[in-house]
Amino acid sequence: MSDDLRHRPLGVFDSGMGGLTVLRALHEQLPGEDIIYFGDTARVPYGTKGERTVRTFARQDAGLLVRLGVKLVVVACNTASAFALDYLRVTFPVPVLGVIDPGVETALERTRGGSVGVIGTSGTIRSRRYQEGLLAGRGQHVGLPVERILAQECPLFVPLVEEGMMGTQITRLALEQYLAPLRNADIDTLILGCTHYPLLAEDIGGFMGPEVTLVDSADALARAAAALLADRNLLRPPDHDATTEGGAGRLSFYLSDIPWKFAEIGERFLGQSIDDVKTVGLDEMEAAGQILPADMQE
Amino acid sequence: MSDDLRHRPLGVFDSGMGGLTVLRALHEQLPGEDIIYFGDTARVPYGTKGERTVRTFARQDAGLLVRLGVKLVVVACNTASAFALDYLRVTFPVPVLGVIDPGVETALERTRGGSVGVIGTSGTIRSRRYQEGLLAGRGQHVGLPVERILAQECPLFVPLVEEGMMGTQITRLALEQYLAPLRNADIDTLILGCTHYPLLAEDIGGFMGPEVTLVDSADALARAAAALLADRNLLRPPDHDATTEGGAGRLSFYLSDIPWKFAEIGERFLGQSIDDVKTVGLDEMEAAGQILPADMQE
Repeated sequence: MSDDLRHRPLGVFDSGMGGLTVLRALHEQLPGEDIIYFGDTARVPYGTKGERTVRTFARQDAGLLVRLGVKLVVVACNTASAFALDYLRVTFPVPVLGVIDPGVETALERTRGGSVGVIGTSGTIRSRRYQEGLLAGRGQHVGLPVERILAQECPLFVPLVEEGMMGTQITRLALEQYLAPLRNADIDTLILGCTHYPLLAEDIGGFMGPEVTLVDSADALARAAAALLADRNLLRPPDHDATTEGGAGRLSFYLSDIPWKFAEIGERFLGQSIDDVKTVGLDEMEAAGQILPADMQE
Repeated sequence: MSDDLRHRPLGVFDSGMGGLTVLRALHEQLPGEDIIYFGDTARVPYGTKGERTVRTFARQDAGLLVRLGVKLVVVACNTASAFALDYLRVTFPVPVLGVIDPGVETALERTRGGSVGVIGTSGTIRSRRYQEGLLAGRGQHVGLPVERILAQECPLFVPLVEEGMMGTQITRLALEQYLAPLRNADIDTLILGCTHYPLLAEDIGGFMGPEVTLVDSADALARAAAALLADRNLLRPPDHDATTEGGAGRLSFYLSDIPWKFAEIGERFLGQSIDDVKTVGLDEMEAAGQILPADMQE
């Protein structure tokens, strides 16, 4: 790995393929950076699983990226951000960014005096991290009173997206079931608190109506990553030894399993086909979780 | 563990909680036997994941049960049965039973000259194990011509059951989407090729009509387990040192994660509440997969 930290890649991990929406935003925001994506497809989903399990997985995921020499770890998965962000920050000697704070900050910036809703997996919603962030305030923005914060877990949305059921009557019924209470409340902003949900943005927007602003944390997170890299002088210099045509950063993909619908799901999230995927064995994941901070010091 | 093999427990594993339907059938068929259930709730589901990953998980799951001293391993998970049964049989020195052969045999016994359908996860259906079994024949029954075998993957059924959405309009639409081709064909028998599907039996039966016989492999598997134990003189003697009132076998539960809806989902599958659950760490799972046949010899 490069001695000059600035030349190192960014690392992004997610429970599966959903984080490709975050990868896309990062690549758009920071086109010159190499980015390594890891999706824990062998153990997806995280959103239904307990805190301790998610933390163990997240430690292994981040450990793998750190072993690959990344200069920044981006936690694309909302559930992992909810349960493991602080833990990863004290465990690894590289900066770690999660999706929740950028999402909260964007929502506080966009709301116009109504309530703010947040939807996510069972784990994300039950962790209460979004709700606490909205209550406490973030960045330049003060928090909201508790009665202006609404949260709803939507467990069927992930399988519906993975099945490509956007725009179907089944999805419409699921929206009705989960989102009717939010639509009936005085919501003006809705945080899409799961990397899968941006693919349902059209369905959700159609159901909630045009007066509700949807917040996708991916763009806010990409801006936060760019700011952090600039702040710490970690941006890749434009005169770097470009490995791709036109100096665009290279995207690399690691997965712990090649799922049955890999090509189809990958294209759905990334908007382009994924070439050159490396698979990571479970034994390697276990080993990555054993890494000690001392092993990684420069 | 007991020196007398007959006093040892049976072991059942599943990718998650769905295998509790199999545990229930085993307990009814063999009320005097102690049974250990392991659900790999940290890594559920298996049905969307690739063959190599499922095989690695299954090796760890079975290894854990063998370490706990079971006299028989029952693979309740259809996907694990499809990808790992032969592998487990050559790996471990205890008998291993899967759900697929009993299901195939029952379907061949029940069909009345029409076609036989099978529904399951992507992995189970794409493995073609059910289709090959129906083609080749099982037990006393000859196989079917290929045009009398229909298979359909139904990826939304598992999340619908886990959400408790039996009997809802969403489930009705999913049935329509997946099962209409089977209903339009000349099906007289339908194999429920996933441990979650018996909970949808009423919905599926209502959709397919009363002339279609639904085959739940759990009962057939329990009968096969009883026959195997009798055949090998492994049935627990009635005069054993009973650990529970009335001499009923004891049920023990091990899970790799306590999911958010554990109590609710457990009760749904088992029909009773689950007490005394032990959690198994991922490091223990990894270690269980490392076990060598030589370590387990008597």
